[in-house]
Amino acid sequence: MRLLSFEHGGRVSWGVIGERGGIIDLGALTGRRFPTLRSALEANAFNELTALASARNADLPVDDIRFLPVIPEPQKIFCVGLNYEAHRVEANRPKTGHPAIFVRTATSQVGHNENLVVPTESPSLDYEGELAIVIGKAGRRINESDAWSHIAGYAAYNDGSVREWQQHTTQWTSGKNFDATGAFGPWLVTRDEIEDGAELSLVTRLNGVEMQRATTHMMIFDIPSLISYASAFATLVPGDVILTGTPGGVGFKRQPPVFMRPGDLVEVEIERVGTLKNRVVAESINPTKVV
Amino acid sequence: MRLLSFEHGGRVSWGVIGERGGIIDLGALTGRRFPTLRSALEANAFNELTALASARNADLPVDDIRFLPVIPEPQKIFCVGLNYEAHRVEANRPKTGHPAIFVRTATSQVGHNENLVVPTESPSLDYEGELAIVIGKAGRRINESDAWSHIAGYAAYNDGSVREWQQHTTQWTSGKNFDATGAFGPWLVTRDEIEDGAELSLVTRLNGVEMQRATTHMMIFDIPSLISYASAFATLVPGDVILTGTPGGVGFKRQPPVFMRPGDLVEVEIERVGTLKNRVVAESINPTKVV
Repeated sequence: MRLLSFEHGGRVSWGVIGERGGIIDLGALTGRRFPTLRSALEANAFNELTALASARNADLPVDDIRFLPVIPEPQKIFCVGLNYEAHRVEANRPKTGHPAIFVRTATSQVGHNENLVVPTESPSLDYEGELAIVIGKAGRRINESDAWSHIAGYAAYNDGSVREWQQHTTQWTSGKNFDATGAFGPWLVTRDEIEDGAELSLVTRLNGVEMQRATTHMMIFDIPSLISYASAFATLVPGDVILTGTPGGVGFKRQPPVFMRPGDLVEVEIERVGTLKNRVVAESINPTKVV
Repeated sequence: MRLLSFEHGGRVSWGVIGERGGIIDLGALTGRRFPTLRSALEANAFNELTALASARNADLPVDDIRFLPVIPEPQKIFCVGLNYEAHRVEANRPKTGHPAIFVRTATSQVGHNENLVVPTESPSLDYEGELAIVIGKAGRRINESDAWSHIAGYAAYNDGSVREWQQHTTQWTSGKNFDATGAFGPWLVTRDEIEDGAELSLVTRLNGVEMQRATTHMMIFDIPSLISYASAFATLVPGDVILTGTPGGVGFKRQPPVFMRPGDLVEVEIERVGTLKNRVVAESINPTKVV
């Protein structure tokens, strides 16, 4: 299944891509029981969702909805830095004996087809194409051999980074958490559709030009070891997201540096998962705006 | 007002300390409108809460409830590192031109009187007494002069840190996010009770022995500048937490190092806010437990 969160006519919902295209509105069908995709994951309701999805025609054309981040409000978004050797080398960072984990927060995310925003504070917004794992089953101290069973599925992520702010201190938080700089979509492809450990290609394109290419087998810490490490300290809960790191080819270490500029189109394509597309815009709000 | 989140008889609720002691159960009184303290902050319902609190006798004795973290599920917990000069020097870190921000997540928190857990992975659990700010009004790019108006109130925090894991990589996330290592309480003292910018003493005691002492005027980046910096990149929303950093005197840089050990009692006392107390325990769960 391809599960997604969306907005339609001002209403926030979630659903599944139907067998003949279009969206089956599972938020409307399940009502208060599962108001969000995260709540359906918490209930481990896959069998019910599959039955609903197969018995029904689409409720909405895909063109009518606005994509939200796959999980709009995860409890945790753990991001792994320096997890592809080519990126570690280009970023001029020493090898790490453990995954280097930082955190994104919900306000930094947008969905597929939504705009990524170059903030007024800095033009140094860089792309980072990544495979995102979404947790489906809670767990602490998950063994690597059990790790796959805790995965609900996969999505693409653009871990957009304001490099100038990322370098303000040793901690990368500020540069990784500007509003509307991370894209998460288009949907969650459930684990049953991709055999555990399959090698998936990952390509990032900027205005159609390939900027990053790798496969998921090039990760330094593989998916089971990331789940095992993160769950050693924190209980993972359904809807939690682990971003598995970006390959070589990011913009800020190119000569000359490349940043995402207003008008650009950025795509993160992951084999058998989908292609996440976002347009880049300049910030149009009043810089002193108070929400 | 002193607002708090609690559990009573298996039911999760929130409330206020009544004028004659005891707890007024605002979760029960407001029902579906405000199921959590965070939701009441989102609605900016202070006037209503004040009226309810003053017109009513206590529903529950304080001894009958289990304290939860003041905000059990904040959207964001931004933690500021190295924000007191004595701690920066003892930690042997260079000066930072900007606040060094890392993130805690909800699973790492416990409430007042609850146990802090030394994980099986490492005995290096250290205390860090801190003043916590809770956001009451959403905002982006908040000017320093407006910052105070975005604060709902203050609490004490023990930003417990597993030093060995904090040093795994340049990013501090893993050592700052072990389950049940951060304490947040006992309650939120609302902003109207403490004049903006008041100098508040902060004392951390381990088994009654004073380990840290400072005042909030010793912060390198003061409260308005922290709110301004964090909101420059991220929209702050009600219930968000900013930990303002710990003073000098932490355990791991002492000779010999001091860590929190099973049986210890740790207290963070902040003038006019309250005293957060927690017992330290060894982990009793099966280390391969899967929730």
